[in-house]
Amino acid sequence: MNNFRFSNPVTILFGKGQIANLTAMIPAEAKVLMTYGGGSIKTNGVYEQVKAALANHKFVEFGGIEPNPHYETLMKAVELVRAEKCDFLLAVGGGSVLDGTKFIAAAVPFVGEPWDILAKNAPLQTALPLGTVLTLPATGSEMNGNSVISRAETCEKLFFGSEKVLPRFSVLDPETTFSLPPRQISNGIVDAFVHVMEQYLTYPAAAPLQDRMAEAVLKTLIEEGPRTLANPKDYNARANLMWCATIALNDSLSVGVPQDWSTHMIGHELTALHNIDHAQTLAAVLPNLLTKKREGKREKLLQYAKRVWHLTSGPDEERITTAIAKTRAFFESLGVSTHLATYSVGPETITTIAARFQQRGWLGLGERGDTTPEEVSEILTMSL
Amino acid sequence: MNNFRFSNPVTILFGKGQIANLTAMIPAEAKVLMTYGGGSIKTNGVYEQVKAALANHKFVEFGGIEPNPHYETLMKAVELVRAEKCDFLLAVGGGSVLDGTKFIAAAVPFVGEPWDILAKNAPLQTALPLGTVLTLPATGSEMNGNSVISRAETCEKLFFGSEKVLPRFSVLDPETTFSLPPRQISNGIVDAFVHVMEQYLTYPAAAPLQDRMAEAVLKTLIEEGPRTLANPKDYNARANLMWCATIALNDSLSVGVPQDWSTHMIGHELTALHNIDHAQTLAAVLPNLLTKKREGKREKLLQYAKRVWHLTSGPDEERITTAIAKTRAFFESLGVSTHLATYSVGPETITTIAARFQQRGWLGLGERGDTTPEEVSEILTMSL
Repeated sequence: MNNFRFSNPVTILFGKGQIANLTAMIPAEAKVLMTYGGGSIKTNGVYEQVKAALANHKFVEFGGIEPNPHYETLMKAVELVRAEKCDFLLAVGGGSVLDGTKFIAAAVPFVGEPWDILAKNAPLQTALPLGTVLTLPATGSEMNGNSVISRAETCEKLFFGSEKVLPRFSVLDPETTFSLPPRQISNGIVDAFVHVMEQYLTYPAAAPLQDRMAEAVLKTLIEEGPRTLANPKDYNARANLMWCATIALNDSLSVGVPQDWSTHMIGHELTALHNIDHAQTLAAVLPNLLTKKREGKREKLLQYAKRVWHLTSGPDEERITTAIAKTRAFFESLGVSTHLATYSVGPETITTIAARFQQRGWLGLGERGDTTPEEVSEILTMSL
Repeated sequence: MNNFRFSNPVTILFGKGQIANLTAMIPAEAKVLMTYGGGSIKTNGVYEQVKAALANHKFVEFGGIEPNPHYETLMKAVELVRAEKCDFLLAVGGGSVLDGTKFIAAAVPFVGEPWDILAKNAPLQTALPLGTVLTLPATGSEMNGNSVISRAETCEKLFFGSEKVLPRFSVLDPETTFSLPPRQISNGIVDAFVHVMEQYLTYPAAAPLQDRMAEAVLKTLIEEGPRTLANPKDYNARANLMWCATIALNDSLSVGVPQDWSTHMIGHELTALHNIDHAQTLAAVLPNLLTKKREGKREKLLQYAKRVWHLTSGPDEERITTAIAKTRAFFESLGVSTHLATYSVGPETITTIAARFQQRGWLGLGERGDTTPEEVSEILTMSL
């Protein structure tokens, strides 16, 4: 097992009616900026619940944070926070609202051009405190310090991470997800599944507990995912999906083990260039990445085949092929296509992505640092 | 799934050489009380490593905290802290040193009789900050706010828990465990195993991820336990045992599910009255508690039989009986007796324990609140 440092101080308030309890989590004297997205919270009752919980706080609102939140939009929120002198942010929504609000928290006190936080990994001296009310299980943003922001102007989608933007608290009420469109639930299942795979499907590192905990999330997603799609008001299915998505990316699965985030890195480019849903890009890339890198990932693919898909007979190669095929079939069964052709992506996009990786110096991705831009092109070609 | 609140801000520094990194975790101006036990840290190199890490801090020492730390001993440390005006505690040792140091942290600023923290659950207004260097994987104390303290004078062993005594950080270097006697490693495996069982072996609560994460720890302990005993310098085996013991009781397995801590409650009395090792009491009680309560725990016992012990054929009753027998055999295989007769416990002790439970109003223990003092007597009689 590798050495590691683990710290995750986010307080989780989980369950029915928990939005009411956020009152006590925000300093009484704080002036709050409440952020949200396209306005679905105004039709599903969440907006009213949050407003009621903030009855004794001063607060202003900023709606309209889009999926794959735009730098341009978020900078308007930064101006509002500065003008209104808000000192606490409350993000109400899914991963995009949460990620966007983390960026606002970082950008408000940032000295210089805030884009540098993303483009140059500029270190944060401080950030505004923030809390979240999660309404879409998927990204894990509610319990980590990660954020991914897009710039419409340049078709870029970039990541930053800092413990300074860890939420002080996150409210997870599964009932807030009852009214989500099936596509968003399907995307959430795929996103959480791929998060786990990128921390798990590498090479053995003598870390059997981390392996089994990762497998625990994968098996539960396979079991609960279809259940929550079949019956959107099955509270327990939604609760289990929500908790799986949080555990999938709260840093507890990755301690002491190698990781391979290349599926996400490739996927982000596809979203940036074609505005494809994040999870759709992951579903298209992961099966082919596993196929391309099957030699380096051989031992873990066999473990995954056995423990997650119960493949115990037949030659090794066949079990690996079947496990990858079952992964693809799982995504398709949720209604998420695993072919980029579905989204009219063609060879010219592949050339652009490979050139961007070259230009950024991303010459060796993956747990062994051996996935070259040429291999990225091959993986994308397989994904068409 | 039940509603829950989860928060665990402890920073973990895990791996080889991590003791050196505790320097940065303690405020530079702090005056530290370093606590430890019987002095084994002076022969295995840990004491020197900690002293080197504290080279730029003012610090004083307090050694001699015994297993099942005594209130009487700890109150001497409280006096020392007050006299020396220490404002940070650093516990170096196993669960007893850590639990004892949490009590010191709570008692120093406590107004009134500190025994009330244990005997009357007196709430804590504040506590001194503390960090830990763990040298014995077992209790999970390094990542929770729990503490169990004994009073020699009255043969009592009582619990308190508060987020005020959560360690600011815990250093877990598996190499510090290489020199432990086998009995302490065996005890640690049993202790961690039983911690998981008490959060898992109740009734189904529609929480499949929590179930699988609990099973992940149990299966890893079954696999790694014998390995670490067979080769005390197998770094990965020790690392895995250490991480299992931490996860076993860091509050992540118990979220949203029922719990049954009666094995610990009964075991504490046996230690208080007969000075039997904590884990030995658990090994003697758990198999009989599972047998006595097998009807109420039926569904989870069958799940445990299947998933942890791979028992998939035969009638239900037989699988349950075999799973309990395998649990007992696992403890025995580690060299931990599952019979109280080994420690000369007789019927009079059982009478005393049942009377204490009556007197404290502990009339219905377990996840259903239906384990009576009479049943406690029966379980103890089965355990002789």
